[in-house]
Amino acid sequence: MSAENTSANYHHKSLVIGLFGFGVVGEGLYKVLNQTPSLKATIKKVCIKNAGKPRQAPAELFTTARDVLLNDPEINVIVEVIDDSVAAFEIVKTAFKNGKHVVSASKKMIAEHLEELLQLQQETGQSFLYESSACASIPVIRNLEEYYDNDLLHSIRAIVNGSTNYILTKMFEDKLSYRDALIQAQQLGFAESNPKLDVEGYDAVNKWTFLLTHAYGIITNPLELLFTGIQNVNAFDAQVAGEKGRVIRLVAQAKKLGNGKVAAAVLPQFITQDDHLSFVRNEYNGVVIESGFADKQFFYGKGAGSFPTASAVLSDISALRYDYKYEYKKLYHHTPLELTNDFYLRVYLSFDELAEIPKEKFEWIEEWHAREDRKYLVGVIHVRHLQTGNWWRENNTSLILQPDAIIENLELHNLKKKSLQLAGIQFHHQFGGY
Amino acid sequence: MSAENTSANYHHKSLVIGLFGFGVVGEGLYKVLNQTPSLKATIKKVCIKNAGKPRQAPAELFTTARDVLLNDPEINVIVEVIDDSVAAFEIVKTAFKNGKHVVSASKKMIAEHLEELLQLQQETGQSFLYESSACASIPVIRNLEEYYDNDLLHSIRAIVNGSTNYILTKMFEDKLSYRDALIQAQQLGFAESNPKLDVEGYDAVNKWTFLLTHAYGIITNPLELLFTGIQNVNAFDAQVAGEKGRVIRLVAQAKKLGNGKVAAAVLPQFITQDDHLSFVRNEYNGVVIESGFADKQFFYGKGAGSFPTASAVLSDISALRYDYKYEYKKLYHHTPLELTNDFYLRVYLSFDELAEIPKEKFEWIEEWHAREDRKYLVGVIHVRHLQTGNWWRENNTSLILQPDAIIENLELHNLKKKSLQLAGIQFHHQFGGY
Ligand SMILES: NC(=O)c1ccc[n+]([C@@H]2O[C@H](COP(=O)([O-])OP(=O)(O)OC[C@H]3O[C@@H](n4cnc5c(N)ncnc54)[C@H](OP(=O)(O)O)[C@@H]3O)[C@@H](O)[C@H]2O)c1
Ligand SMILES: NC(=O)c1ccc[n+]([C@@H]2O[C@H](COP(=O)([O-])OP(=O)(O)OC[C@H]3O[C@@H](n4cnc5c(N)ncnc54)[C@H](OP(=O)(O)O)[C@@H]3O)[C@@H](O)[C@H]2O)c1
Repeated sequence: MSAENTSANYHHKSLVIGLFGFGVVGEGLYKVLNQTPSLKATIKKVCIKNAGKPRQAPAELFTTARDVLLNDPEINVIVEVIDDSVAAFEIVKTAFKNGKHVVSASKKMIAEHLEELLQLQQETGQSFLYESSACASIPVIRNLEEYYDNDLLHSIRAIVNGSTNYILTKMFEDKLSYRDALIQAQQLGFAESNPKLDVEGYDAVNKWTFLLTHAYGIITNPLELLFTGIQNVNAFDAQVAGEKGRVIRLVAQAKKLGNGKVAAAVLPQFITQDDHLSFVRNEYNGVVIESGFADKQFFYGKGAGSFPTASAVLSDISALRYDYKYEYKKLYHHTPLELTNDFYLRVYLSFDELAEIPKEKFEWIEEWHAREDRKYLVGVIHVRHLQTGNWWRENNTSLILQPDAIIENLELHNLKKKSLQLAGIQFHHQFGGY
Repeated sequence: MSAENTSANYHHKSLVIGLFGFGVVGEGLYKVLNQTPSLKATIKKVCIKNAGKPRQAPAELFTTARDVLLNDPEINVIVEVIDDSVAAFEIVKTAFKNGKHVVSASKKMIAEHLEELLQLQQETGQSFLYESSACASIPVIRNLEEYYDNDLLHSIRAIVNGSTNYILTKMFEDKLSYRDALIQAQQLGFAESNPKLDVEGYDAVNKWTFLLTHAYGIITNPLELLFTGIQNVNAFDAQVAGEKGRVIRLVAQAKKLGNGKVAAAVLPQFITQDDHLSFVRNEYNGVVIESGFADKQFFYGKGAGSFPTASAVLSDISALRYDYKYEYKKLYHHTPLELTNDFYLRVYLSFDELAEIPKEKFEWIEEWHAREDRKYLVGVIHVRHLQTGNWWRENNTSLILQPDAIIENLELHNLKKKSLQLAGIQFHHQFGGY
């Protein structure tokens, strides 16, 4: 049996690539492609920013003139892996209009221009694939599109940022300082050029924005989602976690509520040992999906780094050979779901001064502990109090979700009665009223 | 944006299904399809064996005459989920020849007729999808085909049989007897109709046969692979595992060796706590893939049961709308790899009488323990001594792989020196020579 006889073979196109960016991902792709001659995809030209930088590839491959790639009729695929989201969007837009398929890793650009990018795909009919922009080597978009296209997702929880996960792991396991852990992540090539993007949760919420589209048909904006990063997680929190046999992770999550709407957030969370996400260490990512038919699934793999990211880009390129497109099935073929801001969260809050905490915003407080260096409480709060204020990110306050943090309105009342009787009164008592 | 406008929409076919089998999987599919009207796939007719059985579906849907389905020109998809592999192969063959695509869950049939089925796909150009036959709800075939098509797999290790995993979990965690655990698995609908298929490893090795094709391009026969089930795993073994903080799982594995060939086996194995497979409990399945570019991946989900299996069948049906086919890329587009039987395994062996154990077949013995009730040793042995004899499955002997069991010829010599000095001599001493 030879390749020529394969019935599936006939519709393979030969792919001529114009590559934008030759950094961690771009150079990774160049190397990976060189090791996979069977793919029959060639990089014809690479556009970079600084002509002067030394490159590990023939000089004639490079240009700084984007139109050399975008106007080349022979180039049928643009791979866009640059770190400038404004320039990236211009490149992708032009590529579409010039009849080229696009593979991209730029989550920021995709999240910020989601609606326009959907529109452009519909207008031009070009493929736009961006698996590497979600969890790098984990095929989460592909599986949401193809495998869960007809399944009902109850919830999806994920660690989608490799750098923060690396930093948290090093802080917990090797007792590295936050700063040293960040420097390591940068040296290893999986931190964003601008660390703020990772550390303050922007990267994670960007990814979550378009993963919500593939999971639920939701179209939203990163800034509309409740999110923060790990910038306020401190050694005290780590110690509290340790005492309870938990770890802290930056978790992106979404859950379909009883009223059919979806609750979503990207926040640090305490993770118990039996949670699959506790398995996700260092720069790995992980995705836990609970659905109506398939039940519970867990996908785990490297969420950043040169080769893992390039492998996802390669996989997208490979899929273009048979004209693969995302169909955005949950958006176009089903009734898309809506986001809601009407739910409660069970949160842990550590702080220096109780006076800085708006205790009256809590439905109730279940636990409080005052130690010499720092204090913490565990309580239930409506998300609107987090969405409309910055108090929980300021004054050295650290907010971390409890396990199973999302509480629906319906559940609240039963819980309320019990909790007020138990812990609330105790709290009240100890603090002498609030 | 409406469905009509979706550029990707134009090539959708309407699917008219002829369903063979209305048992755990078939009835599950019927229910699941009823809950996904968006798919626009209808079951026109169901063929079963016993006309008299009461069914939870309209009587006019059923027939016992297979040709009613196979000769109906309106039916373009045959879904084959019966538990008779001989009849299944006849059905699938005829379906192909009659120009119908086929979705199947019959791992036994697929493993036993792999070569003919590949041939038939090439000759007829029909799609043949069988994701549900591997790890039910885990899209392992799809990911091996699409996502790792150009990546080099160093190794793949998996728990592919839900029933044995359920039984082992119940034996370990709930201290159930083997028999009670098996009965539970059967009642819950994820044991094969014939328990021998599960318990003695046939089901796992069947799956492993075609997963080796998708992972490495290997075409082999289930009976050529080294395998056993969990029929000999006993309470003593469980106790030894517990003492070392390990669990026992039935693990299917394959590893690319230094010489470019692939070592494969399906055997019980001790699993350490940091191994991802230790996470896989009850009827869940799990797959750990280590590859050149994507690095380490882990997929986890329900490996059996009505809805999880039906969800995979549904996903295959859905993929037929855009004429999806497996391309068997590792087989046709790459240089397929070869299996080898020239490697060593580090094994644990528990037994009643040392006299029954051919000690001379071991390269060396690292550990031995004689307890009142039973004895065990840990040693290194060439696979040929397992492949050519049945002694390790007989006389109440139980063989379990150590973690990291596969040893290449190259590694052996270094290890040998060290081990003989340490443990071998000690063993020799205690037993008074052998
Ligand atoms: N690193 C990862 O693990 C990872 C994982 C997933 C996704 N991503 C995403 O992939 C993209 C690239 O990341 P990276 O880590 O490879 O970044 P990087 O190492 O900083 O490389 C950026 C590359 O983009 C080029 N570039 C910047 N602006 C350009 C412009 N206007 N025109 C042409 N080229 C331009 C740079 O050119 P010079 O070489 O001349 O400076 C450089 O080659 C980002 O969107 C990032 O979010 C990265
Ligand atoms: N159960 C699981 O979790 C699972 C998971 C993955 C794959 N599978 C595979 O899926 C297949 C079906 O499994 P199952 O658990 O659904 O089996 P099952 O519950 O025993 O049902 C078998 C069905 O096949 C029908 N049947 C048997 N021989 C037939 C024939 N010659 N013509 C027409 N119909 C025939 C039976 O008809 P009657 O109803 O008239 O008896 C019955 O409806 C098997 O190959 C199995 O290995 C099962």
